[in-house]
Order: sequence, then structure tokens, then C-alpha cells
Amino acid sequence: MDGEISFITSGTVTTPQGFLAGATYAGLKKKQVKDILDLAILSAECPCTGAALFTTNRVKAAPVVLSRQRLQSGKVGAVVVNSGCANACVGEEGIRDAAEMADLAARNLGVSPDTVLVASTGVIGRRLPMDLIKAGIKRIKVSRDGGHELARAIMTTDTVPKEAAVAVSSDNGNFVIGGAVKGSGMLHPNLATFLCFLTTDAPVEPELLKHALQKAADVSFNMVSIDGDTSTNDMALIMADGMADVTGTISPGDHQSEIFQEALNRICIHLAKSIARDGEGANRLIEINVSGAASFTDARQVARTIATSSLVKTAVHGKDPNWGRILAAAGRSGVEIVESRIGLSIGNICLVKAGCPVSFDEAEVAKIMGNSEVVINLDLNLGRSEATAWGCDLSKEYVAINSEYTT
Amino acid sequence: MDGEISFITSGTVTTPQGFLAGATYAGLKKKQVKDILDLAILSAECPCTGAALFTTNRVKAAPVVLSRQRLQSGKVGAVVVNSGCANACVGEEGIRDAAEMADLAARNLGVSPDTVLVASTGVIGRRLPMDLIKAGIKRIKVSRDGGHELARAIMTTDTVPKEAAVAVSSDNGNFVIGGAVKGSGMLHPNLATFLCFLTTDAPVEPELLKHALQKAADVSFNMVSIDGDTSTNDMALIMADGMADVTGTISPGDHQSEIFQEALNRICIHLAKSIARDGEGANRLIEINVSGAASFTDARQVARTIATSSLVKTAVHGKDPNWGRILAAAGRSGVEIVESRIGLSIGNICLVKAGCPVSFDEAEVAKIMGNSEVVINLDLNLGRSEATAWGCDLSKEYVAINSEYTT
Repeated sequence: MDGEISFITSGTVTTPQGFLAGATYAGLKKKQVKDILDLAILSAECPCTGAALFTTNRVKAAPVVLSRQRLQSGKVGAVVVNSGCANACVGEEGIRDAAEMADLAARNLGVSPDTVLVASTGVIGRRLPMDLIKAGIKRIKVSRDGGHELARAIMTTDTVPKEAAVAVSSDNGNFVIGGAVKGSGMLHPNLATFLCFLTTDAPVEPELLKHALQKAADVSFNMVSIDGDTSTNDMALIMADGMADVTGTISPGDHQSEIFQEALNRICIHLAKSIARDGEGANRLIEINVSGAASFTDARQVARTIATSSLVKTAVHGKDPNWGRILAAAGRSGVEIVESRIGLSIGNICLVKAGCPVSFDEAEVAKIMGNSEVVINLDLNLGRSEATAWGCDLSKEYVAINSEYTT
Repeated sequence: MDGEISFITSGTVTTPQGFLAGATYAGLKKKQVKDILDLAILSAECPCTGAALFTTNRVKAAPVVLSRQRLQSGKVGAVVVNSGCANACVGEEGIRDAAEMADLAARNLGVSPDTVLVASTGVIGRRLPMDLIKAGIKRIKVSRDGGHELARAIMTTDTVPKEAAVAVSSDNGNFVIGGAVKGSGMLHPNLATFLCFLTTDAPVEPELLKHALQKAADVSFNMVSIDGDTSTNDMALIMADGMADVTGTISPGDHQSEIFQEALNRICIHLAKSIARDGEGANRLIEINVSGAASFTDARQVARTIATSSLVKTAVHGKDPNWGRILAAAGRSGVEIVESRIGLSIGNICLVKAGCPVSFDEAEVAKIMGNSEVVINLDLNLGRSEATAWGCDLSKEYVAINSEYTT
């Protein structure tokens, strides 16, 4: 691959050419901080090719139902998103509210409502306060540097906005991919609503865009959550406007598609790690590298089981090298493992060889476990497949945040 | 069913005729409290019919490997059990240590080592200190009232011993079932080691005993944990010595077998609830009743998904009637549900009808959620099957306990 991929300083969802965004405080979230935002619009100057992944939860929020329907055309012009209210579990009225929200944004932008998608995050079971939404949308002005505002407006218990952009230069031309996400509730078995908005000025063939998004999610966002453990509102959207100076359309099988996939993976992994790092109450990012698995599926399964183990997460929180919990999690992952073959290290310190504990400097491991990033390497010694998952430690603050969310 | 089943005051594992137990402090656990115990023997005056369920974790502790092997004969005379060290993940030496532990107990009791099983719970990855085990076993004297000591000796982070006995009287005679369990680590996806010792003086046919134990576990212990989410050391053992004055042997299909099953279910549900109530850091027991499911499997799956949802558990902890989390958990359980049919109540207060929120007195629901037992009733309105699961709230204390376990 001769493409060069690099992260752009202060890059965001409006860094690629042709994308605009803006946000306002509509009054949906409690006003806890200065400059709070809770309603945003992301729009494109030209109609875009769009692809999205939606929650697999049987209980789907109204904006998910609406956006999925509208995206069947494969075309998207804008998305309007709010935090503070999920617009979920409120019956048929929720669908009408979501459609009206799209209509209001379409009117503000002067585009067709059919190409406007909707996303929401917040408390389930409450209707959207449409008067606040209406007044709010009227106030929003989209601009080329509005991406940072969008990243802030979608935050719920997130402590920092999460956004990035990568620049790709290759023989066929240069393009950019930008993105903003929210996450934050990170404890298995429930990922709090995950929203992801990706933009690119690369000209991408529609089918390729869809597959590339799924592939990138599988090595990034799906490795901080668990398949099927999705909230009612989860959504990952990518919009491609083709405004970059690239020769031809990036299509399946061609050389450019590999570069595009690699760049998309890179930005998605970056954003996924930022979600794990900012998990509710989290103090550290945990990276679990599983190697020597018999298949990629096995490697993923073991890595994710460890990443979501509450006993592993609390051990990391307490800087406690209680490696037995890591082996126990691997053992109950459903994957065939052979205890006598397992190797385990935390950071660069070996703890287990051929299934047996080796003596190690506990103080040194505890020190490593106190770092902002803790890397766990588990070698199953059964094959050549590997996978990486990310999680965070489980702290008392997680409980505090989630005991006091709606009240 | 004309049998009468009643709980016996201060009943325990040695309440049925012919069972003896005793315990000592061998020094395996840190001496945190007065009268601490960590090593116990449960034995029978006559050889017993035995049946057991063992962990499904691929990583199995040495005592599980040994006991499973020995129980293939269907006969058991005694079990020796320690807390403070799991004897797991220590290679072949662990098996030798477990066998020696059984031999020492056999010598103390004057029985054949082949009929002595072993169980352990505690930290993984450390060898059993055999000198302490050896000296400890020598000190143990078993007696008819030693059951309470056994229940204390198997505790780890449990705050109370968990034991019970039920008396059954029927036309065919009277018998007793006793039991002691330990649990405590309750947060999905990891149940801390679960140990259960059941005894009965009823004469039970071996195959029936095995099936009855599985059936009882399916409506009790398996409804506080998750199938497959077992520790390396989990074990549930039942011993039947046939010493009660009952006509004939209780066999599959006969009337007595129904009474026996019902009595076994009752004591197992009682013990399972005591495990949930004493979950690490727990303040309340959560009972989830799912009704109107299309199948029993569906009902179980939904009930257990809710019981293990961290967001539901933290909401109950905070007395927060955030019912959307309950619906979201049901929605991601993998079971086909229809949002517009769902009914939900907490205690006797209806929160959701036909998938839509109804107005309710939030203060009243918060009050109910502050009780020591919180009952959640979810009606799927799709069929006639129902199931009950139990869990506990998730508190900051859970995190504290699990951050500081080994160090």
C-alpha cells in the first residue's frame, strides 16, 4: 500500500471538504456546565452517498426506525442530532416527533426532508420537548468549523468531546476522513448509546462504503462493546460527498479501496479507544491483545470476554495483578482453550507460561497497572489468529454516575 | 401433591439423619474476624448416592477435575472443602495437592479415599499450602451439629453463612433435605465461586438424584448466575444416605419423586435468593418475574438479562425508576419481543402499558425501590411461559471489594 495516512491536528467531522455543522443549547440537557450544547446539525454542501449501522436491540428508538427507513435510498444530505432525550419507548408519537425534527432541520437547511436523518441520545421513555427542538433548530447556523460544536452537543456522561480526522495521500489523489463519536457508558452488558458520525470527501462507491463501515466497526467499535449489547439508539453513519481531488471512484477490489479501508480502520480505532478511555468513571484504558487463537472469531471472543469482565475491570482499577481472573474470563468465553498452553503478560512482564504462574515482581506489575493505558497480552498458543479489544477499569464513580442518572 | 414441606428453624447441611460435619481455621484465609474458619469436612455415617454439577469453565480447578472423576462411581462418603485458595491454574501439582487433601480427610474419617471429594474456593494461581491443610484436617472433629461450622468455613466475601433445611412429610414417610452454599461475587459476567452442599436422608434412586439436582439448579442457582458464566471452581453436590423412614426408593415417575423435586426446588430457591441478597456490596435483592413469554427458554433469557444488567442494577441501587433500562435490557436479550405489547410494574405500581409509559408516582416507586426486596414484573404479552431470576443492586462497595481482593 503506497498511501500515506496521518492524523490531522484538531481534526473533526467537518474537516473533509464540503461538510458543515452547527449546534445550540435547546434546553434538553440540564445546564450543568458553561457553553453546554445539546442539539446539532451536520450537513453536506452536495448530496452524499450514505451508509450506516444501527442498533440490533429489538427495542429501537424512533430516530433509528426513521433513519434506517430513509437511508434505504443510499442518499443523505444531513443529520440532526440531540442529546438529553432518547425519544425511545414512547410509541407512535416518537416516530412523528422524529419526522418533525427532520422536517424542521430540512427547512433550516433548505433541503428535502427525505435526505435528513435523525439521531437521539439520553433518557428513555420521555417524549421529545418539540417546542424546545423547534426553537433550537431555528437558531442553528452550520459552518465549516462547526464540527467541534457537534462533537460537544452529542455528549451525555462523556467528559470530553471525541473527534478526529485523518488525511490520506496517494498516487491517485488526496482525501480526508473525519469523525465525531459519543460513548461513555462502558460497562458490559450495556453500552450506553453509541453515536458515530463519519464524513469523507473521497468518492466512494455505495456498496464499498457500506462494507468498509462494517469492517472498520468490527475491529474498532465492536471491540469496545459486545455484539448485540446495544442500546435502543445506537447508530454509526458515514457520509461521502466525493469532493476530494481523487481520480475515479473508489470501488471494491481496487487499490484505492485498501487505502480507504485502512484509513477508516485507523480513525475508527482511534475513536473507539477514546470511548473506552472515557468510559463512565474510568481511570485507565485497558487493551487486550489475544494471539495464537485458532480463528479470528475465537480471538475476538476471548478478547471481548476479558474486556467486559467486571472482575478484570475492578482488578485493574485496584492495580491488583490478580491474573487468575483473566484466565477465568478466557475460560468461560465459550472458546476451546488449553490451559497448559496459555501465556500471559501485563505490559512487558510475563505472569503465566504454559498455564503455570511464573514468579514476577508484584510491585512492578502494580505500577504498570497504574498507568493510563494497561496492556494485557494473552497467547493461547493454538493457532495464528489475533484480535484486540479495549475496555476500561470499573470504579466506584461508575456506580455513582449510573445510580443518579435520571433523578 | 399431598406432601407437606416446611423449613426447619436453624436447619443446616447436617440436619438430615446420618450427616456429620466439622471445621477448623487452618490459616488459609487472612484472620479478619474472630472465630474464623477456612477448612471443613462433611461426611456421612453410611455411603451415599451422590450427584453433582460442575463448572462449565474450560479452565477447571484441580478439585473440580478430581471430584468429577471420583463421582463417576455414583458413590460418595465425604467432601473436604477449603476457602482462601482455589487450587486453580497451578498445573499438575494442583491435582496432586487435591488428591492428597482427600487422602488426609479419608485417613481422619477412616474411610476409603476414593469416596472423598474435594472443593476449594479463593484466589486463583496459588498452590495450596499443604502443611497448613495437613495440620488443619487433623484437628477437624465431625459431629451432628457441625453443619453451621461448615457453612461458615466456605465463606469468602460472603457476609453471612447460608444454610437451610426443609422437612417433608407425606403418606410414604418423612425425610429432610439440608444445604449450605457460598456465593457472593454476583456481578455478571463473573459469578465468584459458587459452592453448594446438599444432603438428604431420603432414599433416592441415583438417576433421579442427578436429574432432580439439575432441575432444581435450573430454577434457582442458574437464575442468579448465567449459564456458562461460571468460575473455575463451581460445584453443587448432593448426597443421599437413605436413612429416613420412607417406604421404598424414590424413583423417576413415582408420586414421591414429585414431592422430592418440589422440596429440593424450594430449598435451592431459598439458598439462591440468599446468595443474591448477599451479593458483594449489595443492599437489596432484586426479583425479576417475566410472564407472557412465548417459551420458558425465552422467559428465562429475558429475566436473566435484566437481572445481570449493570444499568438496571445501578438504577435499583440509586432507587431510580429508570424503567427504560429494563426495556432496553429485555430488547437486547436476543428474544423476539414486541415493544407495543410490553407491560411493566415495579412492586404493585404499573409503569408501562402496551409499550407506552403511564404516569406514576415517582416518589412512591423510589420508596419501593428502597426496600430490601425489589420486585420487577415484566409481561411480554406474547404467550404463557414465565420465569423468575434474582439479582442484587450494584453498589460502590462492590467495586471496593473487588479492587482489593488479593492485595
